Amino acid sequence: MKLATLCDGTPDGRLVVVSRDLSRAVAAGATRPHLISVLSHWEQERLQLQALYDSLNAGTAADSFAFDPCHCMAPLPRSPQWLDASAFLNHGRLMETAFNTPPIPKFDTVPVMYQGASDDFLGPCDDVPLPSEADGIDFEGEFGVVVDRVPLGATPAEALAAVRLVVQINDWSLRALGPHEMATGFGFLQAKPSTSFAPVAVTPDELGDAWQAGRVHLALHVQLNGQRFGEPHGREMNFDFGQLVAHAARTRRLSAGTIVGSGTVSNVSRAAGSACLAERRVIEIIDTGQARTPFMRFGDRVSMQAHFDDGRPGPFGRIDQQVVAARQP
Amino acid sequence: MKLATLCDGTPDGRLVVVSRDLSRAVAAGATRPHLISVLSHWEQERLQLQALYDSLNAGTAADSFAFDPCHCMAPLPRSPQWLDASAFLNHGRLMETAFNTPPIPKFDTVPVMYQGASDDFLGPCDDVPLPSEADGIDFEGEFGVVVDRVPLGATPAEALAAVRLVVQINDWSLRALGPHEMATGFGFLQAKPSTSFAPVAVTPDELGDAWQAGRVHLALHVQLNGQRFGEPHGREMNFDFGQLVAHAARTRRLSAGTIVGSGTVSNVSRAAGSACLAERRVIEIIDTGQARTPFMRFGDRVSMQAHFDDGRPGPFGRIDQQVVAARQP
Repeated sequence: MKLATLCDGTPDGRLVVVSRDLSRAVAAGATRPHLISVLSHWEQERLQLQALYDSLNAGTAADSFAFDPCHCMAPLPRSPQWLDASAFLNHGRLMETAFNTPPIPKFDTVPVMYQGASDDFLGPCDDVPLPSEADGIDFEGEFGVVVDRVPLGATPAEALAAVRLVVQINDWSLRALGPHEMATGFGFLQAKPSTSFAPVAVTPDELGDAWQAGRVHLALHVQLNGQRFGEPHGREMNFDFGQLVAHAARTRRLSAGTIVGSGTVSNVSRAAGSACLAERRVIEIIDTGQARTPFMRFGDRVSMQAHFDDGRPGPFGRIDQQVVAARQP
Repeated sequence: MKLATLCDGTPDGRLVVVSRDLSRAVAAGATRPHLISVLSHWEQERLQLQALYDSLNAGTAADSFAFDPCHCMAPLPRSPQWLDASAFLNHGRLMETAFNTPPIPKFDTVPVMYQGASDDFLGPCDDVPLPSEADGIDFEGEFGVVVDRVPLGATPAEALAAVRLVVQINDWSLRALGPHEMATGFGFLQAKPSTSFAPVAVTPDELGDAWQAGRVHLALHVQLNGQRFGEPHGREMNFDFGQLVAHAARTRRLSAGTIVGSGTVSNVSRAAGSACLAERRVIEIIDTGQARTPFMRFGDRVSMQAHFDDGRPGPFGRIDQQVVAARQP
């Protein structure tokens, strides 16, 4: 099942069911206007949404309409918690070099994770307003999961069983601000502005064999200003989503609709390229002694689209965004 | 004006206006059931709430009832963002000693701040379920503000003008988990379980002269298991709330209802005592070479109540909570 949220001027938008081929959509209905409330009553709601999805795919849904991903907000325009890990250790190890920071303790046995703002997500085609090019504007292509309620102390298996939807994410990052915030020990805050999401959130069955061992086995194709940037593959994630969600729930309950991210998709093979500028820059530093690829300027565009191993486009649709100067308040 | 949220089994509870002396309450009304929606329409709502407050104080409000703080949830049971600073530098400097961490860079010129869970706050008398006494269970007595919308890039003066309510907070902390999370650079996550709030949120005018220079000039009286623990004073806050809120809004918009905390209230004079165990413990280490005060055990209680300089109780009511073992999921 594929779900999206259309912009209607309200904070939570309007939930729609999207056809498997992303061509058509139909309103989820007056009794389920918002994805967040559907997630809070998943067992009651999912069968009726599935029936709607089946009829939409069969071409028999009443009142269906053409689906335009650029009318989408994030699938969950705001959510109870947004927790982002760094579960591709290859990326983290390269970033330690970039930030010239000491090795993260227990990095390969205990996930690292920060809490980001979850009240103001961006949709897949929204402009990305940021205050200054001097902040080191960067993208981070990721996968993530949306969970049902997770009790405090859930095991990784219990946590994985609570996954309801899979999403594709651009975790915007301001690299000039990150090293200071890491050095304080309090973690990222200013370095992490609003996060963006691909238009469609999908139930794990939409991934077929690509949802495997709690990981998204898709390549994430990233383009910067229309040029190929990389297509790292999700299979190399060092912690699975069950481990990440259980880490988050070690001392707190997670409300239905909590989103947990993988961190930047990153592969050991350099042939895959990267899903963020910082990683390419540190590889340049390692190889040549200096970074040549600049961070983003206002007007630059990044697009991200997952792909199955057989070349078919992934189920989430495409993120395609432009960075712009934030208006002065 | 004083506002509280009564528990009614729903996630956002039921908003009530509370009399100045905390003895009576009256429902805010069917059109404003939740504090979060009032904050989203503050200019329209505040005059009518003020009229209700005035009639309640005059004894003429229809349908008023006895106010019981132990029927309260947090004033905002969930909020868009919960951002907690460490704005009493005396505390931070002592904690560096406790954690044996390097000095936080720019600590006296740039606020440090982490983002905590804001989807599951605890009320003033709620039990505090935690997984293990071995985690180093500690309280942190704080003040905080609830803001209206704050645009990205707001100045400290603009940010201070967006303060709508002042609150009193217990930022529960798990000290055995903090040092590792600080060392990763990703900041506190497991070390910060659900945060608790005193029953009543107040408009700044309720503080009179005690709301001064963007700070809460009240002493925070803390008792542990009925014994005096400390009464540090809010006036020594090194950054004001305008600076803290502007720091938070440097690269993101803040939604109405965002809560920004001061961090543990802490005074240079040791005669004031402390508002958390970790601070007393590190003073013991400095003085005698070892900590003697243990962290909390299940069954221990902490209470916190602000006081004006003339001895009158502060406007927020009292936090009085017991730590209990979390049930296994």
